[in-house]
Formats: sequence, C-alpha cells, structure tokens
Amino acid sequence: MARWEPDSRGRLERAALALYGERGFDNTTVAEIAARAGLTERTFFRYFADKREVLFWGAASLQEHLVNSVSAAPQTAPPIEAVAAALEATGTVFDDERRDGARQRQHVISANTELRERELIKLASLGGALAEALRGRGVEDPAATLAAEAGIAVFKVAFERWVGHTEGDYAHFVREALAELRAVTAGT
Amino acid sequence: MARWEPDSRGRLERAALALYGERGFDNTTVAEIAARAGLTERTFFRYFADKREVLFWGAASLQEHLVNSVSAAPQTAPPIEAVAAALEATGTVFDDERRDGARQRQHVISANTELRERELIKLASLGGALAEALRGRGVEDPAATLAAEAGIAVFKVAFERWVGHTEGDYAHFVREALAELRAVTAGT
Repeated sequence: MARWEPDSRGRLERAALALYGERGFDNTTVAEIAARAGLTERTFFRYFADKREVLFWGAASLQEHLVNSVSAAPQTAPPIEAVAAALEATGTVFDDERRDGARQRQHVISANTELRERELIKLASLGGALAEALRGRGVEDPAATLAAEAGIAVFKVAFERWVGHTEGDYAHFVREALAELRAVTAGT
Repeated sequence: MARWEPDSRGRLERAALALYGERGFDNTTVAEIAARAGLTERTFFRYFADKREVLFWGAASLQEHLVNSVSAAPQTAPPIEAVAAALEATGTVFDDERRDGARQRQHVISANTELRERELIKLASLGGALAEALRGRGVEDPAATLAAEAGIAVFKVAFERWVGHTEGDYAHFVREALAELRAVTAGT
C-alpha cells in the first residue's frame, strides 16, 4: 500500500524541472526525478505517463478553461474580444506562484527540438479548440479561424513577456499584446 | 548508368500523390511510387530522402522566396504590408497548374496525424523565418513576431480558399484574408 504523499504531483514536477534544467531533458531519467522528489518511480507513473508529460499535463485543463470562457462570453462580444477575455481569465492559472516554474519549463522546452515541436502542436490544438468554440457561438469562418489564430499569437507574446518579467500580471500582458497586434495588423 | 528521365521529380510527385490518395500515406511504399511513375526506386531516392519528403520538399524554397520578398519590400512598408506583399508574390508558385496537386496534397496531409504535425511545424518555421526577416528590416519585437504570426494566419486561410476554389488567383485570396483579419482584430 502506497502511503499518501502530500503534493506528490507538485514535488515530482519541481524535481523534474530542476533536473531538466541541470542535465537536459534527454539526460534525465524517471528514476532520478522520483529520487529527487523523495518518491518512488511507481508514484511518478501514478501521475505522469512519461517524463515528457510532466511538461504538458496542464495543456488539457488550459484548453478546457479557454474553451469554457469563450463559450461563456457575452453573446454581443466580437470574436476577438471573446478570445481576449478568455486569455485574460487564464491569469488565474498563470499567477505569480507559477511564474518561476513556467520560466523553467520554457527554458527546458526551448533547448530541445522535440519538445519545441510538441509545444507547437499543443498551441495549434489550442487554436483549433478556440476556433471551434467560436463556431459554437455562431461565428463563421474565416472569422472564427482568424480570431483564434490571432488569439494564439497574443497568447504566445503575452506568455513570453509574463515569464520574462517579475512583475505585471498575465492579464495585463494579454491586453498589451492585443493592442500591439491591432496596431500591427492595421499597418500603422 | 541511369538514363536521363524527363521531369522525373514531377512524375514521382504525381504518382506519390495519387497513391497516397488511393491507399493512404502509410500504406504506400516507395517501390509502388517508383513503379507507378515508371521509374526505379533508385531514381526516387535521387530526388527524395523518403516518401514524406515528397510532400514537404517545396517548403525550403517557399520559405526562401518569402524571406527574400520581405527583405526586398520598400523600407517604408509597414511590417504587415511587407509580409502581405511577400505572400502575394508566392502566387507565382501557387499558380493554376499547381492547384490540383496542392489540393491532393492537402487531403493526404489532413488524413494523417503525423503529416498534420509536420505541416504545423513547417508553418511555424515559416513564421519564425518571416519574423527574422522583419527584424532584419529593423522591426522590433513583438511587432516582428505579431506581423509574422498574422501573416501565417493569412497564409493558411488564403491557401485553404485557393485549393477550395477553381478560380481566383492566390494573391487575391491573400488580400481577402488580410482584410478579414483586420476586421476581426479590430473587433468589428
């Protein structure tokens, strides 16, 4: 019988991020992650399918969060506003406590081709889900696709700034990036 | 000594697209492609590293084409205009003769997860190259990144429409998609 371990997932995640940063993702084993966290490999596999999943397990709930927010936006909100409001609302996920972990994760991913590709695929899937949520609000294509893609561009820029700063909340960077996208697209 | 075969690359490409469409990408072998084209496997491998490359060999020259056009745009052109002009200029690549092949390719890719992922990675790489070309023109971030991402969104929508229609040239669909992106981003 496994003992109950408080915050096992969090401990494994922090141990994995530290090790990926120190030795690189490819050179870290699940056994090492478990040992660093003071847990067993068996416990690791109760939370994560493999060592890559430590970096991507949050994607599904982020996507669900965004899709629900888009669907719940006031019916009168233009598509881009529904998307922006959903992105701002993820500020509850991307809070100050998560910023260090998000930064570490970002470094690990950018150092590894396979992980960068996985991240791209995650973002594309997020974009597809946003477009689908907009269609569910009666937004037609290409507006749904374009608003979703614009949203992903805003998300990427806002996220990068958020992890690159020690102050300023995520929602603020979303608004800022959206304003910049508007200026850029208008061609000013 | 191999005989010189006129348009071997084109024949192999058409044979591959036809077979991928008939049997699926995974169920087609290089031997079958070569046989359908009336050529040898050895000739196939003179042009393509593997059967996937038949679908992606044009990506490098497309990227080069786009990057050169962005760099050559008038210095006064706003970033989004430099990108849009570059996309319009690819109309010389995406001409009416290529439309059927592009449509077949699109079908093959959308039917296969691995190929869809490869296509996403190709587009992301294209976006990165466009952003880099804009930085080379003195455009700062995040404007360079946002204009490049906006350009990729326009590219995707324009390309999809172009393959979905039998008339209308590619440059026309680029302008149309850009106008739509502007309306969507403005929130109207």
